[in-house]
Amino acid sequence: MHTLDAIMTRRAIKHYDATFHMPEADVERLFRHLLQAPTSYNLQHWRFVQVEDPRLRAELRVAAWDQAQITDASLLLVLCADTQAWQNDPGHCWRDAPADTRDLMLSMIHDFYAGKPQLQRDEAIRSVGIAAQTAMLAASAMGYDSCPMIGFDAERVAELIRLPPGHVIGMMLTIGKGTRAAHSRPGQRSLDAVRILNRF
Amino acid sequence: MHTLDAIMTRRAIKHYDATFHMPEADVERLFRHLLQAPTSYNLQHWRFVQVEDPRLRAELRVAAWDQAQITDASLLLVLCADTQAWQNDPGHCWRDAPADTRDLMLSMIHDFYAGKPQLQRDEAIRSVGIAAQTAMLAASAMGYDSCPMIGFDAERVAELIRLPPGHVIGMMLTIGKGTRAAHSRPGQRSLDAVRILNRF
Repeated sequence: MHTLDAIMTRRAIKHYDATFHMPEADVERLFRHLLQAPTSYNLQHWRFVQVEDPRLRAELRVAAWDQAQITDASLLLVLCADTQAWQNDPGHCWRDAPADTRDLMLSMIHDFYAGKPQLQRDEAIRSVGIAAQTAMLAASAMGYDSCPMIGFDAERVAELIRLPPGHVIGMMLTIGKGTRAAHSRPGQRSLDAVRILNRF
Repeated sequence: MHTLDAIMTRRAIKHYDATFHMPEADVERLFRHLLQAPTSYNLQHWRFVQVEDPRLRAELRVAAWDQAQITDASLLLVLCADTQAWQNDPGHCWRDAPADTRDLMLSMIHDFYAGKPQLQRDEAIRSVGIAAQTAMLAASAMGYDSCPMIGFDAERVAELIRLPPGHVIGMMLTIGKGTRAAHSRPGQRSLDAVRILNRF
């Protein structure tokens, strides 16, 4: 599917064929594209929790106000990120660069993030957003539907997936074969309302 | 361009043809697709500052450690969001829905965001991330290059664009005709390193 068509036609789909099994080749293909999502300083700090265990899915559904897509979608991803990736072996992400470039980047990474917890969190959430749209558009292009989700008890979900210290949950994403079309759009803001020329 | 090709080939490009002028029809087309980026509760809380004024571009370049793409790219967007959109007329975003749906959503929106400043900020940053990748992939599909940017003095940029209270800057994005290819990838994490099965 053409990129512009994927962008225009993608909608959040909340009802899925629970009997459909996504072929592993499609899951791998989706992940291969997801890993192309850009991250600042190439830190690739996202961690994608792919929930397959039906009992865990059921518990997550309770933590997400009983939304059916949690158990019924083919793929459930909890999109997390390591807010400490800037100090947890960032050299791994620059190992193929020339040594002087790598040294410069590692120095810049340290100076940019050290002592700035809000920036570390922003970075995690921002990268998850970029990755989520990458996955949603890839899914559309591959003939799947998706639903981005933030409506859940994040503390409970963190317990259930055993989120390690220093990590945050950015959002969840379900992908599968939708069974009902989205409702018509509830109200679009005009371009003039969101495009600002030069300054506010 | 096919969506999966756009995802695989997009790279951050930092050098642009400063003499190239992006046709207004392309700018409008890009924005038309950008506005399809999903937001939680359909709040569409992003505000896209399109900087055309050359003097303002020059000042922003100083605030961004003299990175050339700030002045040389055809399009410079400062991606912001209104963290208070949940209480600033959210009904506008649900005006076309049935009345009972609208009332339910407005009640849910209030309960979800009220009194949660970190969530309000996360939401802004997450939506900007989703929108940024929408714009970057649309740009690729339209034959343009792009560069996502967080390397700048956010306080100074906020002054320069007169960012209103309650708004945050999520990132910047440049779009235009690149003149140099990206360097080879500096180091990719393996799928096994970022995909977690069921729980950490």
